[in-house]
Amino acid sequence: GHPVYRDMPTTIFEKMSGRARETGAINLGQGFPDAQGPEEILRAAADALMTRSNQYPPMAGLAELRGAVAAHYARHQGIDLSPQEVIVTSGATEAIAASLLALVRPGDEVLVLAPLYDAYLPLIERAGGVARVLRLTPPDWRIGREALAAAVTPNTRLLLMNNPVNPTGIALREQELALLAELCVENDLIAICDEVWEHVIYDGVAHRPLIGFPGMRDRTVKIGSAGKIFSLTGWKVGWMCAAPALATLLARAHQFITFTTPPHLQWAVAEGLARPESWFDAMRGAYQASRDRLVAGLRGAGYVVNACAATWFVTVDLPASGIDMDDVAFCERIIEEAGVAAIPISAFYPAEPVTHLVRLCFSKADGILDEAAARLAAFR
Amino acid sequence: GHPVYRDMPTTIFEKMSGRARETGAINLGQGFPDAQGPEEILRAAADALMTRSNQYPPMAGLAELRGAVAAHYARHQGIDLSPQEVIVTSGATEAIAASLLALVRPGDEVLVLAPLYDAYLPLIERAGGVARVLRLTPPDWRIGREALAAAVTPNTRLLLMNNPVNPTGIALREQELALLAELCVENDLIAICDEVWEHVIYDGVAHRPLIGFPGMRDRTVKIGSAGKIFSLTGWKVGWMCAAPALATLLARAHQFITFTTPPHLQWAVAEGLARPESWFDAMRGAYQASRDRLVAGLRGAGYVVNACAATWFVTVDLPASGIDMDDVAFCERIIEEAGVAAIPISAFYPAEPVTHLVRLCFSKADGILDEAAARLAAFR
Ligand SMILES: CSCCC(=O)C(=O)O
Ligand SMILES: CSCCC(=O)C(=O)O
Repeated sequence: GHPVYRDMPTTIFEKMSGRARETGAINLGQGFPDAQGPEEILRAAADALMTRSNQYPPMAGLAELRGAVAAHYARHQGIDLSPQEVIVTSGATEAIAASLLALVRPGDEVLVLAPLYDAYLPLIERAGGVARVLRLTPPDWRIGREALAAAVTPNTRLLLMNNPVNPTGIALREQELALLAELCVENDLIAICDEVWEHVIYDGVAHRPLIGFPGMRDRTVKIGSAGKIFSLTGWKVGWMCAAPALATLLARAHQFITFTTPPHLQWAVAEGLARPESWFDAMRGAYQASRDRLVAGLRGAGYVVNACAATWFVTVDLPASGIDMDDVAFCERIIEEAGVAAIPISAFYPAEPVTHLVRLCFSKADGILDEAAARLAAFR
Repeated sequence: GHPVYRDMPTTIFEKMSGRARETGAINLGQGFPDAQGPEEILRAAADALMTRSNQYPPMAGLAELRGAVAAHYARHQGIDLSPQEVIVTSGATEAIAASLLALVRPGDEVLVLAPLYDAYLPLIERAGGVARVLRLTPPDWRIGREALAAAVTPNTRLLLMNNPVNPTGIALREQELALLAELCVENDLIAICDEVWEHVIYDGVAHRPLIGFPGMRDRTVKIGSAGKIFSLTGWKVGWMCAAPALATLLARAHQFITFTTPPHLQWAVAEGLARPESWFDAMRGAYQASRDRLVAGLRGAGYVVNACAATWFVTVDLPASGIDMDDVAFCERIIEEAGVAAIPISAFYPAEPVTHLVRLCFSKADGILDEAAARLAAFR
């Protein structure tokens, strides 16, 4: 035996950002905005930092933020949560870790859908679980009823899923969500829903949380992220919401992982979540314009770009663009030769990777997007 | 089988702070200062927040902070670390969790010394390890060579220890540290050293890091905490330092637990660590005065208080003070009747608890310490 992490690689996002820092490439790899972030929310954090407590807040989060998350979901998603059902974490990654460490018993199977975020499988393994991967494929990434049923065994206890989906940029269809909910109810599964992109969704579409589906209220852990909602990925403020019996378990794991999250950031996020609907619309509108700008630039350069309904990511189809390289090779070439960092989709598959798509992050200033498109045009 | 955390309680610190919040008791339970924190370090964080990046910093920490930690230990403890040997975490609790999740293989035994911080055993169990507890007792809490040797088996792979020691307030003696180092070398153990109190040490005594002992350089994980050094427990900035082979494993666990820590706090802590020696002396001097003030108040009220060499805690000896209650009963009575929250030492033992000592936190304003002493005097 050896430690679980011995043979695990450094996450692709860190690796690519590291190379972008070293080479000076435009970094459209790791998902983060290049703007300073919303002035009024930064100001709220700075004010709290200078004038309010910087000591341990309550372990499950400040009452203000727990209440703000509950009120926010009531207003935006029609979900009725009490503040006690919200546990604040140091980012959504901690929420995923805490959920798995809290809920997985050795040998439990956890159903996941690939492509998936590269933290999921190491965490499932570290919690003593066994991942069952349902592999989805382009162009529509559809979740089929039969494939889903076939992936469940008598040992399956959890579903860990992401919606809207990184890296594909899709939002799961109503019918697929209903299928997943039925599956959970029929097989008595707990669903851990990584919904960090819930607000970053375009073209007027509303996010549909799995916890709102029939039978899911008491068997869902809903995970959110202030970093994604407020374009402040470095803040590392997240939360996990669940009915009391689950929330109690989640809090017990959380107390021994980070215990708490800086209070000034919690107060600022609480304030941010109370902004009017128009604020979130404006945020989405700005990213939608960035999406459209990068897509237009890439299309103008002869690249075939898939539709993007949500997230900060578009995917480019290499063969359809007339490019005869796989995703890893293309990413290697463009970081070195075009000065653009991107993420190969194969990094989101533990096996049998889809290898003809490359993910590009568009949460960047117009000039950066234009320059990246120009560089990728010149590269062809 | 059931999830590991199902039967675990909420940490005693959170429980007591919750009750203090509810009852309005003076909270000398959980360890945190009641002051706002060092103005210049708060200002550095607020400035960075408003003017520098709030996006994902590098996964292992900002180069500035990794370098500052290495330089700080070179200057203050004569340890020669490279910045690459420093991994920044979201507090020392995350560092302990990441170390155990990175290094424990199922079935590995981890040697710990009781009294111990209540996160240790749940984390060891969750990582698949088995804790071997060496029970230490008052008045001198001495670590004996024979008892130590007897606690090690062929399956022991790690030592997890805390020095200076919470809750006893002692600093391990040179000779005990040498014993522990010899034990690690002889049995090929990795030492995880929770040294969060390294700077909070009084009466001119210098902290002696275990990593500096013969044979320990490449087998030690040294954990530190900005919250303790800068009296900002809510900041949740910590680090773990280890030779490259260990640091690589630690980083792999860290990347899937919190991934990163807010950059503005990292910059501010980097600045803080570069303060001159006199800054740390003044910090220690102020807490030493608080210690002496609370001790004098308690002694004046007829309590017998043990010597305190380090940490923010003193312990009161109940029977020696003529009080005929165990520690839990006394803490119950004083929170309800005297309006003072404290922590029973038995909470630091997994079995066979020492039950005649109560821990009081003195990192508080003079008026609060005086009022607490007066209330405890009136309670007798
Ligand atoms: C924690 S790094 C990953 C950030 C992200 O969401 C992405 O790039 O997919
Ligand atoms: C994380 S709460 C515990 C704080 C502390 O160090 C103590 O009170 O012992």
